[in-house]
Amino acid sequence: MSDIPKSHPRYKSLVTRKQLADYALAGVVSMEGLTSHGRGEAFDYLIGEKTPAAALEAEKLAARVLLAANHPVLSINGNTAALAAAEIADLQNAADCEVEVNLFHRTEERIEKVTAVLAEAGVTVSTGPVERCVPLPHDRGLCRPDGIGSADVVLVPLEDGDRCEALVGMGKIVITVDLNPLDRTSKTATIPIIDEVTRALPNIAAECRRLRAAGEKPEMPASFDGKYFLKGAVDAISETLTHALD
Amino acid sequence: MSDIPKSHPRYKSLVTRKQLADYALAGVVSMEGLTSHGRGEAFDYLIGEKTPAAALEAEKLAARVLLAANHPVLSINGNTAALAAAEIADLQNAADCEVEVNLFHRTEERIEKVTAVLAEAGVTVSTGPVERCVPLPHDRGLCRPDGIGSADVVLVPLEDGDRCEALVGMGKIVITVDLNPLDRTSKTATIPIIDEVTRALPNIAAECRRLRAAGEKPEMPASFDGKYFLKGAVDAISETLTHALD
Repeated sequence: MSDIPKSHPRYKSLVTRKQLADYALAGVVSMEGLTSHGRGEAFDYLIGEKTPAAALEAEKLAARVLLAANHPVLSINGNTAALAAAEIADLQNAADCEVEVNLFHRTEERIEKVTAVLAEAGVTVSTGPVERCVPLPHDRGLCRPDGIGSADVVLVPLEDGDRCEALVGMGKIVITVDLNPLDRTSKTATIPIIDEVTRALPNIAAECRRLRAAGEKPEMPASFDGKYFLKGAVDAISETLTHALD
Repeated sequence: MSDIPKSHPRYKSLVTRKQLADYALAGVVSMEGLTSHGRGEAFDYLIGEKTPAAALEAEKLAARVLLAANHPVLSINGNTAALAAAEIADLQNAADCEVEVNLFHRTEERIEKVTAVLAEAGVTVSTGPVERCVPLPHDRGLCRPDGIGSADVVLVPLEDGDRCEALVGMGKIVITVDLNPLDRTSKTATIPIIDEVTRALPNIAAECRRLRAAGEKPEMPASFDGKYFLKGAVDAISETLTHALD
């Protein structure tokens, strides 16, 4: 593998890609996870590689919802752990919630590896027996009955659309972090955050801390307008496209 | 690695991703190539997963330019070989041009593996000593002096922006195939084809065959308007976005 020249205009993006590639070789990130990351990169480029105003609103709402929840759980996969282990530890601390590892390409070995990456960064990972709590074929329905299985709010970055829909179908409030506003994950989530995960999680954590410091105990909203956040992201992309060929 | 359920709405996309992952494990595709594929997937989704009208125009123009060239070369990397080896063989036949392997993450081992994948599909791959013909740092400047080094027209799918710019700077006519119309590759190419590679190459080959069958011997155009093709792609994306949240 050749070195990445610092002179390359996309140096930062290439370095992140290389880090994920190393995690893939170590078995933390799946091969398919690398491709998913690429899709995210494309959409991040299109939203301007910064948090759109609507995404910041979604992140602040997510913080209120996490604090209002009875049993909030962060559902973490390989890509999220590889990209944002420190940010997950910080959010767990700020929102006081459980962290459970959930993989699309699930093997016990990968569960252990992802758990180790998180633990290394200071995350307290809930472990224990899993059952098919989520109505999905194969291993994708597995989770801990006393974790995601009984959560009222699940924050699940970089989730598959199928599973997001199934979690919503179980009556849970599902907060997603995904850069594609047109993905079924974003379209079916209760609160779709269209932002890059290492920008989104710190914003949620900061709002949790602000609310706590202000002594606020948020109430759970009676309803949500996920489409508002999707529209904000689509508008950000349209804005980028308008000036793209100037 | 779990099986991909056929019931998944993105089954085809997941299967292609799995194929590329297998090629990555075999050392044909680089880990970073998987991420690049993901970026392409995102833009393909946005252009509607079909050839936009402007892309078809670009493909027909590319065919004329390949037939008008004195020394046309197809420059092929790991991803292109993994996705479209049969289509490359067919285009080489239709356009009667040389094929040279060129890798961003270049090692002799990967050059041999990519060459083997192409040869297996019936491509005649030009091999031999390389020199730093292209003014770029590291191994990315290497190519065959009597191949890409002396080509007047280079068709290079899924190319890095840096190298595309360097090839254009050498006075070559550079035809790219890339799904991102905002990428520097597309912006600096002489003829940017904004289409998926397994759709683009057969369209170019078909037009080569049509021109030959009609007895046409195209002349090299005096100038090119690459931006016209970029605008066509951006319009296609805007169209998708307009209806995305209906």
